[in-house]
Amino acid sequence: MQTARTVLLCEGAFADFGTSKTAYGILRFSPESVVAVIDSTNAGRDAFEVSGLGRGIPVVRDLEAALAFSPRRLVIGIATVGGVLPPALRKIVFTALEKGLEVHNGLHEMLADNPELAAAAKRGGGGIVDLRREPENLEVGTLRAQQVPACVVLTVGTDCNTGKMTTALELVREAAGCGIESRFCATGQTGIAIAGWGIAIDHVLSDFTAGAAEWLVLEAGKDKKVRLIAVEGQGALAQPVYSGVTLSLMHGCLPDAMILCHRADQDKIEVVDTPMPPLTEHIRLYEEAMRLVKPAKVKALAINTRGLEQEEALRLLEEASRSTGLPATDPVRFGAEKLLEALLREDLRKIPLYSGGPAS
Amino acid sequence: MQTARTVLLCEGAFADFGTSKTAYGILRFSPESVVAVIDSTNAGRDAFEVSGLGRGIPVVRDLEAALAFSPRRLVIGIATVGGVLPPALRKIVFTALEKGLEVHNGLHEMLADNPELAAAAKRGGGGIVDLRREPENLEVGTLRAQQVPACVVLTVGTDCNTGKMTTALELVREAAGCGIESRFCATGQTGIAIAGWGIAIDHVLSDFTAGAAEWLVLEAGKDKKVRLIAVEGQGALAQPVYSGVTLSLMHGCLPDAMILCHRADQDKIEVVDTPMPPLTEHIRLYEEAMRLVKPAKVKALAINTRGLEQEEALRLLEEASRSTGLPATDPVRFGAEKLLEALLREDLRKIPLYSGGPAS
Repeated sequence: MQTARTVLLCEGAFADFGTSKTAYGILRFSPESVVAVIDSTNAGRDAFEVSGLGRGIPVVRDLEAALAFSPRRLVIGIATVGGVLPPALRKIVFTALEKGLEVHNGLHEMLADNPELAAAAKRGGGGIVDLRREPENLEVGTLRAQQVPACVVLTVGTDCNTGKMTTALELVREAAGCGIESRFCATGQTGIAIAGWGIAIDHVLSDFTAGAAEWLVLEAGKDKKVRLIAVEGQGALAQPVYSGVTLSLMHGCLPDAMILCHRADQDKIEVVDTPMPPLTEHIRLYEEAMRLVKPAKVKALAINTRGLEQEEALRLLEEASRSTGLPATDPVRFGAEKLLEALLREDLRKIPLYSGGPAS
Repeated sequence: MQTARTVLLCEGAFADFGTSKTAYGILRFSPESVVAVIDSTNAGRDAFEVSGLGRGIPVVRDLEAALAFSPRRLVIGIATVGGVLPPALRKIVFTALEKGLEVHNGLHEMLADNPELAAAAKRGGGGIVDLRREPENLEVGTLRAQQVPACVVLTVGTDCNTGKMTTALELVREAAGCGIESRFCATGQTGIAIAGWGIAIDHVLSDFTAGAAEWLVLEAGKDKKVRLIAVEGQGALAQPVYSGVTLSLMHGCLPDAMILCHRADQDKIEVVDTPMPPLTEHIRLYEEAMRLVKPAKVKALAINTRGLEQEEALRLLEEASRSTGLPATDPVRFGAEKLLEALLREDLRKIPLYSGGPAS
């Protein structure tokens, strides 16, 4: 997670959740690191008034005002058209670098490749972290993630946008609260900006996708104290547009357990508009897809119940739990305790690789 | 398939199957197009003596000798270290272009991007076809392959290198022999060189892999007379190194039937060295992975029995057929008749997309 004193750069867009998704993610999962948000159109307000997050964090008009809070880091908190840094923001980033801040950039554009910005970073001494830059020499995935002693949990989904990142982050937060050393592995842009490291796994050459997932787990497992690694899933096996990325991620990170994420109100698969299969069908598919490599199981359900009354949400979770035989919660609404419990019930067990014959 | 009068450029390497895999593929599947093979180290011999293929095709010492056979096309028939065209071959290619031949290049290096070669191609009028160049503006796959009325068959495998390209090509050859209009969709370097078009699908950004498979089927289906499209599979769902590519290919090309390819002598999964699961387990996995998108089935087995005595091979095929309930053959040894029969038995049936509920 981000820990340095951080300024979020959201000029002109902090009120827009879609554009400022990265900033909202950081405010949600590491608000204690944020000292100010830059957005002249909301200057003078409290971050909570604008975003519903980050109570007590001031929104300021410009970088100069933000510098009064002695930040160490500037995070570009917004997405831009084409993934390019617009000229107005470029000036702010340039000055931040001159002033010695470390700039974290999740846009497609690699800022460290820009000679002027690189020179400013050198003069200031802070540096540029291009979060989308892949580690060099990625290899194909070859089951090496199994060497990590920690229990690896992968969030999988019934579709894209079902809360896989949020669920993994909530699980890690819950584990930390229980004194369990854990790590979050980010596989998408927002998760990477929140965590400060990771790989945007859908932008890797398809040959190396599993290898990228493997690399993440090996990195997270370097600290031998780590007992739980939560990997952010991508796509869904039943979502034909992205299913290959999903399977590469599964076979690269080699989960010991999966948590199935679902949006309660969804009755069609996005983009292709085919019917949403029942939860039991998704569970069967995920377990089948792991069976001949490492027979991991889905251990819990994380269901996004946004828009439902509390009572209705609880009834829906109970029904999902009944139909699948698995614990179910909405981690945003009710916390991730049930998810962690499901893993602790088996003592964060490590599952062995497939050993031949008709698997269970 | 390649049809123009073709010279295969295999200088110094025609005796080496590994290096000249592309040339061997063309000699196997469209020998009638080949007028000569260039390799000074085997000049004067018959292609069959050197390769076991292409009886009656002369091996000649250089391009000048090859030109006596009035070729229209020069195909680079070898793979090179780093995928770059070595200087000695570059001279031959340059001269061929000057002389008006169309050059087909399956190497990673894009020859059309080289100003000298491009100029030579322009002067000669033949042109350069860089077979690995991706079509521009590839999109994500969105089930559009289902619009193609032809029956789409995908060869899938128990691992990499199980004969998926060969099986697809043998099937198309068998269909052509029966007067069924059919097309081969190449997804790997060798297949592309043989077919003269295709996409090396493992070199696409993972987001676009399914889209690339979709594009191939849509291209092959443009001719409405086509009744059968055989797509060359890649990797295997039980091969964790490449499983994501395999699934993208499946969900992009949307097969109506799958043919499972297997090497009779293989008891471990390559690279990761885990036990080879039984055929029935692979079949179950492939069918499960299609179930919630388009419930296609595995309809036949193509088993490579190389190294076995004829009687032993037949016994093994019978045993595989018995254990799976599917027709089984070795298409290289015994032809692809059984495979085509299995498809015709259901009249090249088109399978509808998943329509909801617990699938069959």
